[in-house]
Amino acid sequence: MPYDIDETHDPELESWVESANDRETDFPIQNLPFFIAQIPGYDQVLATRIGDRVVNIAKVAAHYFGDSPALQDLVGPTSVALYDLCAFMTEQRRELRQRLIALLRSDAAPFEEVDEDYKFMYQVDEVTPVGWDIGDYTDFYASVHHATNVGSMFRPDNPLLPNYKHVPIGYHGRASSVVASGMEVRRPVGQQAPGDGETQPTFGPCKLLDYEMELGFIVGRGNELGEPIDINDAEDHLLGMCILNDWSARDLQKWEYQPLGPFLAKSFASTISPYIVTMEALAPFRCAPERAAGDPEPLPYLQSEYNRSHGAIDIQCEVFLASAKMREQGLDPIKLSRGNFRHMYWTVAQMLTHHASNGCNMQPGDLLGSGTISGTTRDSRGSLLELTWDGDPFAEPPVVVPGTSRTPLKLPTGEERKFLADGDEVIMKAFCQRDGYRRIGFGECRGIVTPAH
Amino acid sequence: MPYDIDETHDPELESWVESANDRETDFPIQNLPFFIAQIPGYDQVLATRIGDRVVNIAKVAAHYFGDSPALQDLVGPTSVALYDLCAFMTEQRRELRQRLIALLRSDAAPFEEVDEDYKFMYQVDEVTPVGWDIGDYTDFYASVHHATNVGSMFRPDNPLLPNYKHVPIGYHGRASSVVASGMEVRRPVGQQAPGDGETQPTFGPCKLLDYEMELGFIVGRGNELGEPIDINDAEDHLLGMCILNDWSARDLQKWEYQPLGPFLAKSFASTISPYIVTMEALAPFRCAPERAAGDPEPLPYLQSEYNRSHGAIDIQCEVFLASAKMREQGLDPIKLSRGNFRHMYWTVAQMLTHHASNGCNMQPGDLLGSGTISGTTRDSRGSLLELTWDGDPFAEPPVVVPGTSRTPLKLPTGEERKFLADGDEVIMKAFCQRDGYRRIGFGECRGIVTPAH
Repeated sequence: MPYDIDETHDPELESWVESANDRETDFPIQNLPFFIAQIPGYDQVLATRIGDRVVNIAKVAAHYFGDSPALQDLVGPTSVALYDLCAFMTEQRRELRQRLIALLRSDAAPFEEVDEDYKFMYQVDEVTPVGWDIGDYTDFYASVHHATNVGSMFRPDNPLLPNYKHVPIGYHGRASSVVASGMEVRRPVGQQAPGDGETQPTFGPCKLLDYEMELGFIVGRGNELGEPIDINDAEDHLLGMCILNDWSARDLQKWEYQPLGPFLAKSFASTISPYIVTMEALAPFRCAPERAAGDPEPLPYLQSEYNRSHGAIDIQCEVFLASAKMREQGLDPIKLSRGNFRHMYWTVAQMLTHHASNGCNMQPGDLLGSGTISGTTRDSRGSLLELTWDGDPFAEPPVVVPGTSRTPLKLPTGEERKFLADGDEVIMKAFCQRDGYRRIGFGECRGIVTPAH
Repeated sequence: MPYDIDETHDPELESWVESANDRETDFPIQNLPFFIAQIPGYDQVLATRIGDRVVNIAKVAAHYFGDSPALQDLVGPTSVALYDLCAFMTEQRRELRQRLIALLRSDAAPFEEVDEDYKFMYQVDEVTPVGWDIGDYTDFYASVHHATNVGSMFRPDNPLLPNYKHVPIGYHGRASSVVASGMEVRRPVGQQAPGDGETQPTFGPCKLLDYEMELGFIVGRGNELGEPIDINDAEDHLLGMCILNDWSARDLQKWEYQPLGPFLAKSFASTISPYIVTMEALAPFRCAPERAAGDPEPLPYLQSEYNRSHGAIDIQCEVFLASAKMREQGLDPIKLSRGNFRHMYWTVAQMLTHHASNGCNMQPGDLLGSGTISGTTRDSRGSLLELTWDGDPFAEPPVVVPGTSRTPLKLPTGEERKFLADGDEVIMKAFCQRDGYRRIGFGECRGIVTPAH
């Protein structure tokens, strides 16, 4: 299964790509995430990254993998799509990982020595990472701490709805507006609730623009319509994970979301980081999902032995902000929060299994978002809605106030923020660290807010 | 604009395809809907239907449209995709319509006389209509009568939420599970709320399976991310309309929908009819949207002169049911309801403009659903949730009871239905009829319920 630990996770493995051996890099030889690279003068190609280098998988496969029955699908074509990889079974993915590592490890011959004219590898700044065509995008709500924070703002006496600890709550998102890291995000325009004493809503630029720090997981093999995915098979249907910024217009959301859920408050943009970190690379960071005393047992279709002991993943998630003025003054982005994906109530396997439990067909490349990743402490809150809110339902005694009392963040320029201003850049990072293993990173997910139309 | 009436709507126009001249046909020469036809031994082709015949548009274009600058995009390739048509501007769509009518009208030479070996046309039963690749699917909630019925079941004192008459409420749907008419629909499995006195929900086959009679509208030209669509341009971005059955699992929906809206209750299947009836063909059936005394003015971005006078469309919508036993006994389907799309609170232009108002990018082929089409009378209710419910918020005095009191439908076999049973076939029809114009029909949208997995 993709979560097995094997010799490819050995922390002593090093590469002849020197930059991959830096203990701080996100991209050691143990990582090898997949992404789509636009190579100048070429088509978009399926690639992997190691250190500060990018490897063209089709070129490598054509030259080195001809003897591998498992990898024949990669050998023939001059370019390989993400969807070819999605179709791979676990054993094929493992073989690809093992073969790439065998080629890149320090005791192998560097590509340059094999054939100087054959371009297997690029410097990372020679290529542009681009997104892939996402068929459907679904966003979950899997952090019980996020749900409790948000619920406390609107229903102080009853923050968590009765279904929360039984149903991995999610909703269909908009696939067309999922954009690649680095693309500007235009502040949306929309309806806002009537003011006090007014009867007509207003229409104008969003005043409460927010980010949500999430992780996305990407479907590899799909399932046929009408055929559910057993939880024991769920991870076999996942290709890997990325960072997801689920930008949110809170004022639009508040006015529109009853009774059918968030719509235009979300669909103006969702930004993903380019690198798909494989489930295989994440294997050493698995851990048990957290449960509190009195939490109900999940229904049987959401339970497995592995999920109980290792369903969660220890991934640190950090959010940074740089205002336009900070960038002008050459100031570094400031860190707003640090959360951890291990605190989610529902696991990736549970979310995927639940999604397909009614027979809904998942398709290769589909994106599933985790929902905002928040913890119980103030500095782990994954959105400004929570971060600048004065309440704290996890304090002793709980400080549960309605949603109006907010303390702004102070920026080093003297600026203040309750929500995002035009020109603000939001930078999200995620990485895994654990004694005895190499750091596995996701890179960055970036987006600058531009003024409304 | 696509809603102008011109000589192509002349009811006296007849075709050399005799079956198109039947006054009862859905497909006279004035209709010419687009669809994707699977022709045995060929690829899927873009086609139109007239009477009981199907016309291969690429073949006709290559042979007849070489002199038309507007239609050059159709002339070169051996097959033409729906997306080629989506890119057309209004003038190109009008020219295609005029040219097809000129070829098919009774004073033109039938195709057979031009070239016997060149296959322009098929019998309708020689081809299989298939769906197209839908990028994103959005479902609206545009019938105030449906919203009032449903709201009355759960909130008798306050059926309609404060945002309803300002916001065209909608939510993102699941595109992957949109299926073509005729495909079986498997009863979904899912979580249902804990019973009285219980604390754990149950997981099993849906007990309250329902249909929703909707119309879908299909995006032609898209818009760039960040660029809204002005309401005066909205219809120019629509290719046409089809029938949509938004199958719904009411027990799953009730338990899962708070706070983020319907999810698995909808995503197991949505069925569309194959023919895309063009906005041009629907032009004679435009009418003013209905407003009651005291209804608020829409916000300016949702207003246009044309929309006020002609934004609605008079389309009759009928739902029929045949149980397995009825089919075994050779009994005709029974009509469950007849509604009309003209009673919707929001128009197609308002829904599309609202959807793009935050900058969300619409893409060619995207499907937008209207929401259940219900009127104020019991026989116009577009779902079983409403049809078997004993309440009637539009009666004098209103009969607004909670959602538990239901009178089952009686079938001619003696069977009864509050919701759908396995083996039930739901058949939806839609058509326009108005004095002085030919009937324009949508054909049928069919689906049989098969037992849960």
